[in-house]
Formats: sequence, C-alpha cells, structure tokens
Amino acid sequence: MIKAGIIGSTGYAGQELVRLLHGHKDVEIVWYGSRSYIDKKYYDVFRNMFQIVEDVCKDDHLDELAEAVDVIFTATPQGLCASLVSEEILNKVKIIDLSADFRIKDVTVYEKWYGIKHASPEFIPEAVYGLCEINREDIKGARLIANPGCYTTCSILTAYPLVKEGLIDARSIIIDAKSGTSGAGRGAKVDNLFCEVNENIKAYGVTTHRHTPEIEEQLGYAAGEPLLLNFTPHLVPMNRGILVTAYANLKEGVTEADIRAAYDKYYKDEKFVRVLEPGICPETRWVEGSNYTDINFKVDPRTHRVIMMGALDNLVKGAAGQAVQNMNLIFGLDEAEGLNLVPMFP
Amino acid sequence: MIKAGIIGSTGYAGQELVRLLHGHKDVEIVWYGSRSYIDKKYYDVFRNMFQIVEDVCKDDHLDELAEAVDVIFTATPQGLCASLVSEEILNKVKIIDLSADFRIKDVTVYEKWYGIKHASPEFIPEAVYGLCEINREDIKGARLIANPGCYTTCSILTAYPLVKEGLIDARSIIIDAKSGTSGAGRGAKVDNLFCEVNENIKAYGVTTHRHTPEIEEQLGYAAGEPLLLNFTPHLVPMNRGILVTAYANLKEGVTEADIRAAYDKYYKDEKFVRVLEPGICPETRWVEGSNYTDINFKVDPRTHRVIMMGALDNLVKGAAGQAVQNMNLIFGLDEAEGLNLVPMFP
Amino acid sequence: MIKAGIIGSTGYAGQELVRLLHGHKDVEIVWYGSRSYIDKKYYDVFRNMFQIVEDVCKDDHLDELAEAVDVIFTATPQGLCASLVSEEILNKVKIIDLSADFRIKDVTVYEKWYGIKHASPEFIPEAVYGLCEINREDIKGARLIANPGCYTTCSILTAYPLVKEGLIDARSIIIDAKSGTSGAGRGAKVDNLFCEVNENIKAYGVTTHRHTPEIEEQLGYAAGEPLLLNFTPHLVPMNRGILVTAYANLKEGVTEADIRAAYDKYYKDEKFVRVLEPGICPETRWVEGSNYTDINFKVDPRTHRVIMMGALDNLVKGAAGQAVQNMNLIFGLDEAEGLNLVPMFP
Amino acid sequence: MIKAGIIGSTGYAGQELVRLLHGHKDVEIVWYGSRSYIDKKYYDVFRNMFQIVEDVCKDDHLDELAEAVDVIFTATPQGLCASLVSEEILNKVKIIDLSADFRIKDVTVYEKWYGIKHASPEFIPEAVYGLCEINREDIKGARLIANPGCYTTCSILTAYPLVKEGLIDARSIIIDAKSGTSGAGRGAKVDNLFCEVNENIKAYGVTTHRHTPEIEEQLGYAAGEPLLLNFTPHLVPMNRGILVTAYANLKEGVTEADIRAAYDKYYKDEKFVRVLEPGICPETRWVEGSNYTDINFKVDPRTHRVIMMGALDNLVKGAAGQAVQNMNLIFGLDEAEGLNLVPMFP
Repeated sequence: MIKAGIIGSTGYAGQELVRLLHGHKDVEIVWYGSRSYIDKKYYDVFRNMFQIVEDVCKDDHLDELAEAVDVIFTATPQGLCASLVSEEILNKVKIIDLSADFRIKDVTVYEKWYGIKHASPEFIPEAVYGLCEINREDIKGARLIANPGCYTTCSILTAYPLVKEGLIDARSIIIDAKSGTSGAGRGAKVDNLFCEVNENIKAYGVTTHRHTPEIEEQLGYAAGEPLLLNFTPHLVPMNRGILVTAYANLKEGVTEADIRAAYDKYYKDEKFVRVLEPGICPETRWVEGSNYTDINFKVDPRTHRVIMMGALDNLVKGAAGQAVQNMNLIFGLDEAEGLNLVPMFP
Repeated sequence: MIKAGIIGSTGYAGQELVRLLHGHKDVEIVWYGSRSYIDKKYYDVFRNMFQIVEDVCKDDHLDELAEAVDVIFTATPQGLCASLVSEEILNKVKIIDLSADFRIKDVTVYEKWYGIKHASPEFIPEAVYGLCEINREDIKGARLIANPGCYTTCSILTAYPLVKEGLIDARSIIIDAKSGTSGAGRGAKVDNLFCEVNENIKAYGVTTHRHTPEIEEQLGYAAGEPLLLNFTPHLVPMNRGILVTAYANLKEGVTEADIRAAYDKYYKDEKFVRVLEPGICPETRWVEGSNYTDINFKVDPRTHRVIMMGALDNLVKGAAGQAVQNMNLIFGLDEAEGLNLVPMFP
Repeated sequence: MIKAGIIGSTGYAGQELVRLLHGHKDVEIVWYGSRSYIDKKYYDVFRNMFQIVEDVCKDDHLDELAEAVDVIFTATPQGLCASLVSEEILNKVKIIDLSADFRIKDVTVYEKWYGIKHASPEFIPEAVYGLCEINREDIKGARLIANPGCYTTCSILTAYPLVKEGLIDARSIIIDAKSGTSGAGRGAKVDNLFCEVNENIKAYGVTTHRHTPEIEEQLGYAAGEPLLLNFTPHLVPMNRGILVTAYANLKEGVTEADIRAAYDKYYKDEKFVRVLEPGICPETRWVEGSNYTDINFKVDPRTHRVIMMGALDNLVKGAAGQAVQNMNLIFGLDEAEGLNLVPMFP
Repeated sequence: MIKAGIIGSTGYAGQELVRLLHGHKDVEIVWYGSRSYIDKKYYDVFRNMFQIVEDVCKDDHLDELAEAVDVIFTATPQGLCASLVSEEILNKVKIIDLSADFRIKDVTVYEKWYGIKHASPEFIPEAVYGLCEINREDIKGARLIANPGCYTTCSILTAYPLVKEGLIDARSIIIDAKSGTSGAGRGAKVDNLFCEVNENIKAYGVTTHRHTPEIEEQLGYAAGEPLLLNFTPHLVPMNRGILVTAYANLKEGVTEADIRAAYDKYYKDEKFVRVLEPGICPETRWVEGSNYTDINFKVDPRTHRVIMMGALDNLVKGAAGQAVQNMNLIFGLDEAEGLNLVPMFP
C-alpha cells in the first residue's frame, strides 16, 4: 500500500482527493493535514466522511510526515509548497503540488503574476508539469509534480492538438472560460455566499487571471515559440465544472478534417479525453464527478475561425483526479486506478 | 458474472442503475431497455456514458430478455412490471421492480391510490418488500422484489426503530418530506422546467401522495397494528436528495436515551444507515451519490414530541442503490458490493 | 415627503428596504446607516444601486439622525435597537424595528431565547407588534413598531384564522417551515457559501429557533390562552421565499367549509393576503418580489387533520415590505403605497 | 389610457410584459392572447397574477383585436407576426413585434437563418429596429417595431460605441454570450428540465445561432460596412440574465481613455445604459428585474485587445422592457414610464 499524506485536506480539492483515494485500492491516507482544523475529526469538517474517515486533522509537521508517507499532496494556497520542498524531503517522498508554485518555469513570471517571492526556485527546473496526456513519460520518473490548474488543464487540452499541429494562428487564441463555484475555494467571503453567486454570472480577473501565463507557457511549448493570449474566467452558479470556449483563426487551407485528425492523433488512445462526435458540444453535466475531459470543435467557414470547446470537472481532472493520475504514473500503477468513475448525472 | 437487463433504462433511476452496475465487479448489463429510444445509442440519451456504454436501447422483448439475463430491473411507470410477471419468467430470472406494483400487499389499496387495475395480483403475496435493513432474510430467497419508493425508504428508516420499540404514539406521526427534482422523472413537463423549479419550493400531492399507504403499511407492521399518518412531499430546487422531517408524540416517560438506544439497536451494524452524533442534523449534501441514509432526532421537552430526521439520495438508496443492494442479497454477494461510494461533495 | 433613515442598510433586508422606498412616492431616504461600510458609497456595496443611490454609508449618530428624519428603520442584529430607544428619540421620530427586540412582551422569554439582556425593557409594553393584518388599528398610533420576523409572519398568517375561530386544537400545531437563503443574512460564513447551500436541504435550530416563542405568543393571543408548538425551519437552495406547511388536529365536526369561511372572514378584504382557490398549493415562485402572502389548506379526512400552507417573500412581506406597510399605516398613507408590486416570475 | 393587446401573453416574455404594463400608469391591457390557453384564466397559467389579472386568455382574432386596442405586442414564435401584418391593421394600431420577423432588412438572410418563408416582406423596409438608444428618433414615428432580441440587445449595446467610433477592427469581433434559461422559453422540452440545466453549462448553436446576422447587420451599420463575427451563446443555470463578453483587436494607437470617451459619448445621458466605473465588471445579479444594461471594458496591453462586457435582464431590456420603452417613444410618453425599476437583489 502506498501511504499518502495530504497537506490542505480540508479545502474542496483536498476533500475530493480524500474521496478519490478512498476508492483507490493501492493507497492509504495516513495524514489529514489542515492548519485550520487541527485536532478536529475530519468528519466534523466534511460530514459526508462520517463513518468513512475516523482520523483527526493534523498540523504540518513536515519531518514527521516525510517519514510516515510515500507521497505528499499539497492542496494549499500559493507559496506553501515552495516553502516546504527540500532535497532531503524529496529524497524521502514524492510531492504532488496542487498549487501553482512549480507550474511556471520562469520564476520572474511566477513572482509577477502571483505577487509573492518564490521560496525555492532551485526546484523549479526539476518539477514536472503534471498534465499526464502531454508529459506522461516525464511524470513517471518525477519526484516533484506541478499539478496543473483547473482552467489550465481544460484550456490546454482543448487547444493543444491544433497548436501543436500548427493548424491555427497561435497568436489569435482567445479563451473564454466558465467555472463552477467550488473553484473559488471554501474560504468565507461575501462574494461566494449563496445569494451572491446564485442567479448570477460574472467575468473576473479579466486580463489578469493567474492561470494565463501557465496556459501561455504550455501552449507556447506546443507552438514552438512564445505566445500571448486572452483568457477570461467567469463564475457560474453551479458547484462543479469548467467549460472552455476557445476561438482561433484557422491557418490558410485548414479543413475540418485536418482538425479532427489532429484531435484523434493526440487523444484517440487517451482514456480520460473524449473527443465527441461531430455536432455534439461538451457540457459540464456529462463529466461531473469523473476524470474525463470532453472536447469538440466547430469550424466557422464564414469567419475562418475554429471554436474549440472543452469540459471537465474542476475538482477531478482539474485538481484531485489529475493528482491521482500523476501518482499512478509515478508509482507505476495502472494510470486509471481509482479513476474509473462514471460521471454522475444528474 | 451476473447478467442484468434493465427495462426502463433511460429514466433517471434507470440511468443511475447503469452507473452503479458499471462499478459492480460481478455484473454485466446486457440489455438496455427503453421504449422511447429503441435502436438509439445509449450514450446519445445520456452523454456521460460516451465511451463507457456502447450498446443501443432495445424494446421490451420479455421472452428474449428472460433467456439472456439472470436479473431484470424494471425502472418503469406503474403497471408495467405487473403486466410482465409470470411463473414462467420468475422461474428463469429474478425481478427487481423499482415501480410500486408489488409494494402494497392489499391490492385494493394499490388500485385505489394508483388508479389502475393490477395485472397480476396473484404475485403480490410472493413479492418481498426490498427494504434491506428490515427484510434482509426474506430478500435473500426472493424471486420478485418490490424495491421501495424513495420517500418511503427515507420515511420508514427514519421512524422504524421508534415505532417498532413502541416509543412514540404511532397515530401521531406526521412526515414532512422534501425532495430534489430528479424524483419527478425525465418526462417533458412545464412544471419541471428549470425556470419553474428553480427559486421555488412547493408542497404537492398533499394528503394524496401515493407513497402514503406504502409508508403506513410498513410502519404498521412495525407497530403491530394498522396506522394512518400524514405525509406531505415538497419539491426542492436541487437535483438529488430527500430529507424527511417527521414528528410524533412521545409515549409517557420516554427519554432521549431510550430513543438513541432504539436507533442503535436497529442500525449500529448497518453499513448504509448512519445514526449521526447528537446535535447533528442530516443534510442531503452529505449523502449525495452514495447509498447512505443519515438519521438523527431531537426531543422537544416542551411539547413532548420527537422530531426525527432522515436524508438519502433518492436515486441511490431511494432507487438504484437499494436495487443493487437487493440484488447482492439475492445472489449471495457482499451486500455492499458496488455500493462503496463515498458521498460526493460539493 | 417623509424623511427616512435606515440603520443597517447594508444587510439583505436593509437593501430591500432601499429598493422598496425608492419606489415609494412619499418617502425620501436621507440616511444610509452601516457600521461595516462607513464612508463607502452605497452602490459600492450593492451595485444594483449604481446611478440610483449616490449617498455614502454613515455611522449611527442617533441624535443627528433623529433630527434629520421622520422615521427610523432598524435592520440590525438583535439588541441594537433596544439600546437606541429612548423617550427623547421616540418623541422625535417613529421607529420601525426589523429586529426581534420588541416583538416579545415577556422580557424573560426574550432574554432566554435570545441569550442577551434587554437594554430597554420599559419600552416593550408600548411597542406594537406590526403584523398589519392583525394589529392594524394599534399600528396607526404607534411610535415604536416591532416588525415581525419572516418565518413568524408566514406562520401566523397561515394559522391565525383557524386558531382564532377555534377550529383546531391549538396544542397540536406543528409548523414545518422552509426558507430561502437570504434569510441567513449577508455575513461571511462557510455554512452559507454557495457550494454548501446549493444542492442541499437541511433542518436547523430544531426545537430551539428563536421565532418559536414569537409565533407562540401571537397565536396564543388568538387562541385566548398560552400554547406551545413545534417549529422547524429548513434552509432551501434559493435566494428568497418562505413556505410554511403547518399541521393541526381538527376539532370535532369541523368541515372544510368551516375552514374556508374562517380564512375568508379574516382575509377576503386583505390586499396582501391571497387565499388561493381549492386545490392550489402556495408556492414561493408566485410571490417573489411582492408583499403577498399566499395561503391555502387541505383537510385530511383520514387523519382528521388540516394541513395549512403559506408562502411569502421573506425580504418583502417577511421584512422590508411589512416595514413599509407599517410606515404607511403610521403616517396615514394608503397602506399599499409603494407595495403595488406584481410578483416577478421567473 | 393606451389600450394594449398581447398576442402570445403566456410565454415568459409575454408574462413579463404583463408584469411591466401593470406598473405602467398610462396603459391598460385589454387582450391576453394565447393560443395554448384559450378561455383559461390568465392566473391559472401564471399564479403570480392571482387577484391581479382577472381576464381569460383569448385566441388571436386580429380584426377584433385591432378595433379594441391602440398597440399590439406580438410575443410569438417566428413567422406569426409576419403573417398578421397588413396595411389595414397598421392603419389602426401600432405593432411591436418581439419576434425576429422584421429585424433583418435582407429577407434572404432572414429566410436562410430562420428556415422559413417570410409572409410579408413588403413591410420589412418600414419596420424600425427598436433599439431605443440607437434608433430613438425613428422609433417615435413608427407603426411597426422590430423589437431586438435579448442576446442582440446586449451584444450591440456593448460593442456599438467602439465600432461606431472606429476604435476596433470590426472584423475581429468575437462575442461569447451567456444566458439564463428563461430565454429558452416555456415549452416542455427534456433539455430544459431542471435536472438537465441545473449544475450545467453548455454552448449551443455554435456558429449558427439566429441572432448572429441581426448583430452583424446592426454593427455593420455602425461600422459603415458589412461585417462578420463569431457569436457563441451558452446556457447558464439561472432564471434570468444575459452576460456578453466580447473581444476585439484595438486599432493602432487607441487608448483606454479613447474607449471610455466613446462609451461616454453615446451613453452618458442614457437612463438605461450604465457604464460602470473602471475595474467593475458587469454582473447579471445587478440588473435583474430592471431595464438596465450595465457595460464596461478592459484593455489588454499585452495582446492589444479590448474585452467588452455587458449585462442585462433578458426578459426586461432584452424583451418586454424594451418593448415598453418603444411603446413609450411611439406614444410620446416619458421613455422611462413604467420602467423605473430598481434591480431586485438577491
């Protein structure tokens, strides 16, 4: 059995990790970290876990934790994981970081968009960007995984094949994303109260959202050159789900068949990416609770643009599910172990 | 492998059964029945099933079906299962009926409340009321299971120990129930449109809801004598979940400790009934997607009443999950096989 | 023009008062009190008010306020209004208190249920309980109005005629109430976050909710003797609306016609109480945004009980609308002035 | 008093028109047309109207109707209004058509996108596109108004000043729109059931939505030349509201100040368009129930694009409110009469 510890187990992503790992036959959670609920029963924080998890929440005693587990998941605010990582720790355990600390290779970009100083930039080069469908081989040998963001995973997977194959003008990409509210976290803020979110939709972080440089970096690798794009997130009155609607100018002569071929090339053997049949738009309801990303596109012959669409569950493929997928790869397990989840509807 | 057929696989309960059976290691679904979608790909009706279910929907050829499967689930409108059952069929397959056809022992009561003539009253005596926590032993040998209703399961489990132990005046029971909208089915009706249900709560079927005599019959067995009660269902703007708030007069001298002891007596070894800690009220969010029923109570010393509360997921413990639990019992499997589902939150 | 000041103008009820008074031809709001947002533009707190309200929020300088206005609305936490009232103030302005401070005549009951010491019990006898349909004449001459609670208004109006006419056993009343989330206020609490409330229903304050003694007192006056009852509130995932489902034993020989006659007797000339046609259940969607309370009932001949149902908008008839109705009565205006609001659907 | 008739009064837009006209001091509705509910009480279809509207629904006897009223609103499916209009009718009454029949000047474009033959193309030239902020003077003298679509109103108002002033490349416009579900109408369809819409977001009509050519035509007038654009609508789990997020390339040298000046130029005296303060994004919650369109923008210096955002209530400014605004202009009333509605929150 792989022994796992979770730092930040009482946020929404941390709790989803608990749910998923409880359905994983090769993993045992031995450490429920939570600074906010130290010594409190985990099920007092999330009552769905009553009679399932009997543990109490613990503080982050990293040394003790590193001795006790094989893998640490950090589902914590920005900066925390960077402050924990050390050569000594990485020699003992694998770290899968669900925060942004190691996602961006250029530390100045990180520090500018996140507004904090990076505590351990020396580990950035080693960290592997844990988007399994793209970096599978690198993940297998990694000690430190930068688990991608929720918007990011959806955006990159949706656009990647067309960028990689050079079918679209990479400088023309516009990503309009919509997210359920669990992405905003469990912090007590007026803006996230039921009555403020319900019956409302809004854009936020327009031109400044922190997932922007992460998407740009990864799609830049695919394009073979740096690129800039627009990314606009929106908050939707639902619990889970991200929908990405992305626009780009088609390169001269590119046909619908070329685009479908590109998606097939990269995803037809991928278990967790479903390229939908022509004419079917991705919808968040069809992926809820699962590790799938549903993708499709539509060509507009009038404007010579392609509209790319992707949907996933922000807490699964956008966070905890992807973290488990990374763990499976690192430990040589079946990549889908614990993730064979039929989407729950309605 | 147990071969299963589902008649009515394209309603919400039928689809939930598909989800659950796909996670069941001993079952294979070989027949997706649906009169409305004959010859259509199942995933065209429920796109969460894309790349998971490749079958097409079939009409109800009962003879063919009875040869092909070990168990038939009927998730159909009232009257259909009653019209299918015969000695010949029951000699070949087990039937688990999610409709009300065989739930009520007195056929005149059935015909009065449902307003239809029962097509095969001769099988009513044989049918076992499939509330596993109460009728476990009878279920094991059954050929025909009357799978309980969603409101009914929640109401009975919530009140059963106190009635059985004679702690409350059984004639004083009032059940005020609240349900998510999936309980109303997938039929296209104006009353179930998003804009009609959202931002609304209403009572319906007041004094006349069909689950009333079913609850009365089962609690009557517990009481040892017939009883009448009030049952008032309400429609709540959420997808899943039933919450029951039930009121009854305490018998003279009954204490909180007596009540807790009664709940413990019947449920402390039950995997799918969680009696909560004192002071914690059941909430539907904590059972969503799982087979749990959460139960608790509060004594009011001012009025000498007890308020009993129960919560479950109407599509799982209230329908498909309970059907699987019944199937497990019939076929001698671990009762929880395929039902080890951590509630999904949020 | 009547000059109005609002203390606590930045809660949900306070803001609704602003909305309603802006549609009132005889009132001008000259004071937007808010301890939390002093010196902030009101529209920065509620952006629906942009270009409608240009004022900034002010602290509670009571002396200054009493000079500036004719009427003060206090939409504040318990205890605040009691600490402000004095003979001097009441000689200058009318006070309509939306909190519970003056609702309960027996100060020991108030102090027990609310857990705070009452700062000015000497004004309790003078305060008029502002349920206009019942205390209309007393309200007209009042200096100090105790504006009823939201659950309370709905519960009392629903049960009042039957209690008053002696048609039901007043000791058998059970009130099961359901409320939208705006009733929980705008405070930043985890329990009221979107993801916690959405897709959930729960009971809370079971046997201990503070509106209980208020309902008991008022219905006790109607009954002519003290009574105790059960009141169970539930939180529903919607913004606005309260639905009350109340149960009581019918007295011997009481008929459906008797009950309808009782409702007609008290409400047929009431503009803001709509007794629905037989068979039609009240629903919150039909009263949203308006000052109506919709009421109906169903007799259960099997159990000899009556199920009484009422629906209102908790922020209008349950708070701000009723406050305006009280103000209209006090100042001799048309009782419906500013309240001729067609319910907004959907 | 202006006498009004509504054909199609039992759809969501028709019902909203009833709500608004009931608050209009100069209008009396004398004809509630509804083919689906002939001879049924209007309040049996919309129970918010109980004790407010006593009329019964009538069939469309156009001759009789034209004698009885001064203005006819047609809130009907495409094609119906076109089949009713005639010189004789227009000599008697004003027609404000909430359908698309007269919105598009080029009948071949209409027939292609709507897939139906236009029954009275001879009246297209006369019809005035009723976007009051842009065509105010033409509206005043009109006999036949083509009331704009909901997505269209929001899209055009949001982009108009920048197109008109030539600040953006009109060929680069991409409009990503999100709508509440009332825009989908009250027809009984599985896709619009609560459980299908709730907890879901999806794009639909991608590259083919019928509002596309309407937006292109109107913005083309502003640009002074034809233009093509991408318009992608999405369905959001909320009752009301449209949010438009639009993207365009800035022309060389255009500054944020230029853009703000353009918005001010066209909207600073407009009562129903609120250009928000810098940094504040429009949100649908702040306009609900009102006739406002809230607009703002953000310049992205990295990509040299502008993100334009607009929000309105699809049933008010996007349908019934705008229809009333048009009526007010035609009949020489205060343009805001009956529309002084403070947005209702929450």
